[in-house]
Amino acid sequence: MNSPGSNDTHAVEQSTRAAALELGQRARAAARLMLSAPDSAKSAALRAMAERLQQGKQALQEANAKDLEAARRNNLPAALVDRLTLSDKALATMTAGLQQIAAMPDPVGIQSTSVVRPNGMRVGQMRVPLGVIGIIYESRPNVTIDAAALCLKSGNATILRGGSEAFHSNQALGEVIRAGLKDAGLPQDAVQVAGTTDRGLVGELVTLTEHIDVIIPRGGKGLIARLAAEAKVPLLKHLDGNCHVYIDAAADLDKAHDIAVNAKTYRYGICGTMETLLVHRDVAGAILPRLAATLRDKGVELRGCEQTQALVSGVGPATDEDWATEYLEPILAIRVVDDLQQAIEHIARWSSGHTESIVTENLPAATRFQREVDSSSVYINLPTCFADGFEYGLGAEIGISTNRLHARGPVGLEGLTTYKWVLTGDGQLRG
Amino acid sequence: MNSPGSNDTHAVEQSTRAAALELGQRARAAARLMLSAPDSAKSAALRAMAERLQQGKQALQEANAKDLEAARRNNLPAALVDRLTLSDKALATMTAGLQQIAAMPDPVGIQSTSVVRPNGMRVGQMRVPLGVIGIIYESRPNVTIDAAALCLKSGNATILRGGSEAFHSNQALGEVIRAGLKDAGLPQDAVQVAGTTDRGLVGELVTLTEHIDVIIPRGGKGLIARLAAEAKVPLLKHLDGNCHVYIDAAADLDKAHDIAVNAKTYRYGICGTMETLLVHRDVAGAILPRLAATLRDKGVELRGCEQTQALVSGVGPATDEDWATEYLEPILAIRVVDDLQQAIEHIARWSSGHTESIVTENLPAATRFQREVDSSSVYINLPTCFADGFEYGLGAEIGISTNRLHARGPVGLEGLTTYKWVLTGDGQLRG
Repeated sequence: MNSPGSNDTHAVEQSTRAAALELGQRARAAARLMLSAPDSAKSAALRAMAERLQQGKQALQEANAKDLEAARRNNLPAALVDRLTLSDKALATMTAGLQQIAAMPDPVGIQSTSVVRPNGMRVGQMRVPLGVIGIIYESRPNVTIDAAALCLKSGNATILRGGSEAFHSNQALGEVIRAGLKDAGLPQDAVQVAGTTDRGLVGELVTLTEHIDVIIPRGGKGLIARLAAEAKVPLLKHLDGNCHVYIDAAADLDKAHDIAVNAKTYRYGICGTMETLLVHRDVAGAILPRLAATLRDKGVELRGCEQTQALVSGVGPATDEDWATEYLEPILAIRVVDDLQQAIEHIARWSSGHTESIVTENLPAATRFQREVDSSSVYINLPTCFADGFEYGLGAEIGISTNRLHARGPVGLEGLTTYKWVLTGDGQLRG
Repeated sequence: MNSPGSNDTHAVEQSTRAAALELGQRARAAARLMLSAPDSAKSAALRAMAERLQQGKQALQEANAKDLEAARRNNLPAALVDRLTLSDKALATMTAGLQQIAAMPDPVGIQSTSVVRPNGMRVGQMRVPLGVIGIIYESRPNVTIDAAALCLKSGNATILRGGSEAFHSNQALGEVIRAGLKDAGLPQDAVQVAGTTDRGLVGELVTLTEHIDVIIPRGGKGLIARLAAEAKVPLLKHLDGNCHVYIDAAADLDKAHDIAVNAKTYRYGICGTMETLLVHRDVAGAILPRLAATLRDKGVELRGCEQTQALVSGVGPATDEDWATEYLEPILAIRVVDDLQQAIEHIARWSSGHTESIVTENLPAATRFQREVDSSSVYINLPTCFADGFEYGLGAEIGISTNRLHARGPVGLEGLTTYKWVLTGDGQLRG
């Protein structure tokens, strides 16, 4: 007993590791059982959860009240308290989400077009669940329901690890989920809400490669960067949405004006918001003063290159730091470029690979931009704020990925599945 | 200058890091240029390499002779020396491979079925290169050509890091590749052969997440496990091929016999070889003695569960270690199971997730096995040794993946690409 402090630390680490391992093992066992779960059972579970959310409203709001009290005691900003609140409206939105996901077509089991090889064997691919998905998120308790629903519908087992601010709310929502799974005869470990907010648990989960197949972090850039540094389990994530709109020489300037305004002002805080506007020098004089006036009326601060500053008075200088920044604020960086080539190079250098758009009526320019810009979404004549699974027709979205492997851009149910090769023969032999 | 030794080590580490960084930066720059490379240029480069392989045969074999001399000096096993040799036949095979890959359809730019959303904007996906691919491999110099060709055809930039045994051969092949790229007007850094066999370089490459998008290790399990432990860059890999054939109660026993023999004996050393045979107890007595006789005639050692031992004399006992082992040798483990459920459970517990097959004439059994067995390839009435990109019709294969994310099973050109979302509108706005 020479160093009791270090022994205590060791004991805590051990117990955290054991807790992570138990979550992982239970999830893996549940994932195996989920392989034979028909869509009728998955949808029934989601509908049962929807019903229980409404029936259990009082208990949920009582649990939520404990979190809200702690939040006020800790002087959390009003916006955070607002997100944390399980109001009647928030619960109604979650209920509707469950019903909507229940009604979506099952992504599991879908078989691709298959081919018959010269020897007569048939080769195809079948969509299957990814396996075990970990979700690590911050204060919004609605993520507990939304993420659980999408992962369950796609046949996965899920480990949910929410923030300490929403601990009581998440535990209560976890009970609703377990009860719904039980109602439908599905394994209750198919969705587990971690019963501790011990910070060490996150570090254990992101290295549990044997039992967790992918982790989806939902939260601020700080959380995600920290997880990425520690993780051995693959993360499905994006860090930044530094999105660009390029107004080409052949743009319809009315469309360009409206697209740029919408891309910047639809909502300042979402990842698809335009952060830098690139304008071809041939049309900069015709579009920039008018566009600047509209944006300023809406309270947007403008920062620009020298040419922009020459065309619009009162614009501050944009530096390399501006080109690199996802403002998430009513600020816009503007650069006048010599040509399409320079626009593509600017994007290659500064973009975070999220979403970019060209405004042009010229087909070769549009085609070249869409081929050569290497981001997860590339648009023609659309504002970048369309970057959203619902808008793409995915029905729902677990998040947006700027990874290059697996799922890119908005990730819906299909992104929560993988495939296996399925071959059928009649005794063909090799060699 | 108090600790010159440590300063020297530090200097070496610094220079290794700088070398990795330079490879990565050059590759990233080349990858950007490759985004606009048409298939005509990529194919022309591959055909030019094929021609230069034949024309430059003498220089290649001279470089190879240096490696062979060192190999003999170091008493490398004959099989390794054989693999290392750039014989006329080996060069002819590589030449044919280049021509074949040149002739394959370009995977880049393919657009999926697209949909038109209610607001009129069109949403689809376009296949694009993964970006920068690192290949880390052992003694076979043919990988230098094969991997370079597949990665180039799919529009990627590649960093090749071969083993020290093949250093001179790989450098000479790298010259052929560079010359071929130059002939076709493509960036010469699109394929880089690392100019050092410093072991530290591998450690640097697998953590260079900013410049390398995926690493494909080719080699023994030891190499791959070591890389997996260190890597921050995603690996496209498999560790083990512990493959199973299950002979169901409703199997056609003649087919079952031939499939099992082929699965075990087609080649012992490939990852698709059957390592454990599972047999339903209702047919074990009818099939096992006959099958055992055939396998023993071919020199296969049999190890079995108690029931197997009771049915076939002279079979040694199989332990948990046998169920877990990829022998890659003429050894087969055999277990009699009570039913399909027990077969699925055995596979879930012991399989490496590579390839499994059921032999049955019963449709529900086949369907259930194919749905519930969670491996990268699942067969009906076929030997597991079909696990190969050529057999699946992929035309060529960079390797086999047991990853769950991105590409699973045999990986061809498509597995070396990813997709981006492409949206086309005419000024639609959000909200």
